[in-house]
Amino acid sequence: MLTNTRTVRVQWGDCDPAGIVFYPRYFEWFDASTILLFEKATGMIKSKMLEKFGGAGLALLEARAVFKVASRYGEDIDIETEVTEFRRSSFFVRHKVTKAGVLALEGYETRLWTVRDAAGNMRSGSLPPEVLAGFQRP
Amino acid sequence: MLTNTRTVRVQWGDCDPAGIVFYPRYFEWFDASTILLFEKATGMIKSKMLEKFGGAGLALLEARAVFKVASRYGEDIDIETEVTEFRRSSFFVRHKVTKAGVLALEGYETRLWTVRDAAGNMRSGSLPPEVLAGFQRP
Amino acid sequence: MLTNTRTVRVQWGDCDPAGIVFYPRYFEWFDASTILLFEKATGMIKSKMLEKFGGAGLALLEARAVFKVASRYGEDIDIETEVTEFRRSSFFVRHKVTKAGVLALEGYETRLWTVRDAAGNMRSGSLPPEVLAGFQRP
Amino acid sequence: MLTNTRTVRVQWGDCDPAGIVFYPRYFEWFDASTILLFEKATGMIKSKMLEKFGGAGLALLEARAVFKVASRYGEDIDIETEVTEFRRSSFFVRHKVTKAGVLALEGYETRLWTVRDAAGNMRSGSLPPEVLAGFQRP
Repeated sequence: MLTNTRTVRVQWGDCDPAGIVFYPRYFEWFDASTILLFEKATGMIKSKMLEKFGGAGLALLEARAVFKVASRYGEDIDIETEVTEFRRSSFFVRHKVTKAGVLALEGYETRLWTVRDAAGNMRSGSLPPEVLAGFQRP
Repeated sequence: MLTNTRTVRVQWGDCDPAGIVFYPRYFEWFDASTILLFEKATGMIKSKMLEKFGGAGLALLEARAVFKVASRYGEDIDIETEVTEFRRSSFFVRHKVTKAGVLALEGYETRLWTVRDAAGNMRSGSLPPEVLAGFQRP
Repeated sequence: MLTNTRTVRVQWGDCDPAGIVFYPRYFEWFDASTILLFEKATGMIKSKMLEKFGGAGLALLEARAVFKVASRYGEDIDIETEVTEFRRSSFFVRHKVTKAGVLALEGYETRLWTVRDAAGNMRSGSLPPEVLAGFQRP
Repeated sequence: MLTNTRTVRVQWGDCDPAGIVFYPRYFEWFDASTILLFEKATGMIKSKMLEKFGGAGLALLEARAVFKVASRYGEDIDIETEVTEFRRSSFFVRHKVTKAGVLALEGYETRLWTVRDAAGNMRSGSLPPEVLAGFQRP
């Protein structure tokens, strides 16, 4: 399936008094990486994609990270993102973060394709076939 | 004029590898402090206030901070916020940050009360008298 | 066991274009809440506690959150934090976030008490009895 | 003098409920841009540069931004950074942010090269000639 890889330079302001990345930053990068993967799959930015396919959002059900090696200011980390499974409306995202080829941490997100019903309330919706098709690429 | 004072505990994650507050955090606190001052003046949260008085936002024209003394994790800082001048649609906000009574930094924001015109574009609007009245208190 | 509860007002800048809290913010609040719990247990800020008991840090092994109800700007959320289990050097933290009494999300952190060995490398260390004692309170 | 230009993609999580960049983010990008400029000048990351030249930091005296055009999620902004003047120990940084060639905002930082004196206190120090030399390039 489609993957997206990007390199993030760890900046001074990403790090805490111990000199290592303040961990919520990784989740900021994961959120952006998931969106960038959907952009790659659909060729549209998230807001356009939602508009075009009648979506309301990519609601987060669960987020998790398992930390192995800390990263420091000035280092480059590579974030490789893929959807490991699509169900009807939920899907599972995995982010593999490596530093010079060594696994630094892994992140996981469980998300839901949501739509608005007639009353304007958010509820789960079926993932559009056109969106899914965009992931069927190497 | 009305002032709002609040105490912020500097958290570990607010600080950088030098052990002092990463400076954009101060602007986060300033933004929130300005909003809290308007909440105090009007008795409404920002979104309700904008809705009630036909406003589109409190657009930022300029932001500035002058730094005197750094702050570290575990310290409490006091942020005192007031509008130093109201014009027709623009206004000037000052944030005085002290630590145990000593001036640590000062922040300044120039903002604009904005409205949406018929075409949906944002433009400056006159500050509503009801909002201004809320500031005429000690 | 000891718990720490604090109220966080969701600020405008904590929220994303969908109007709800940008999820990494919750992890910022969890990190601070864990530290505040240790401060309550020991009566010291984290840096003093580590210095006094020869610790190097509270290293994070895993972080997780399960989301139920989104929160919006202007809302107050209550974060109740406790250590659900202490082992020799690792421990498990749970954060229960409620909004007007309704469960909004839960967070979990697995952490490790670390020390520096003779060579200056970080490794796991036994949780100091004095620190543990501080948690044996209602 | 030396300039550094980089492109920042505005991410979903950089934006507020009005759909535009939450302004403290710009200061995060300014801070990183200043550091990246010094890295380009010296060929070293900040921590190595400080170590090599006996510096303690690039202390911030003042930060300011003047906002013209808001930016939204999915847009690319270009940040061009240069030192407009070096004095003995202070220096002035300007960040010009454009979007598709149009000026969006400008940022200014006044900073100080600091050193530690014998007692361990931070004070201003002369900018090292080797650092200054790195800026004398196109």
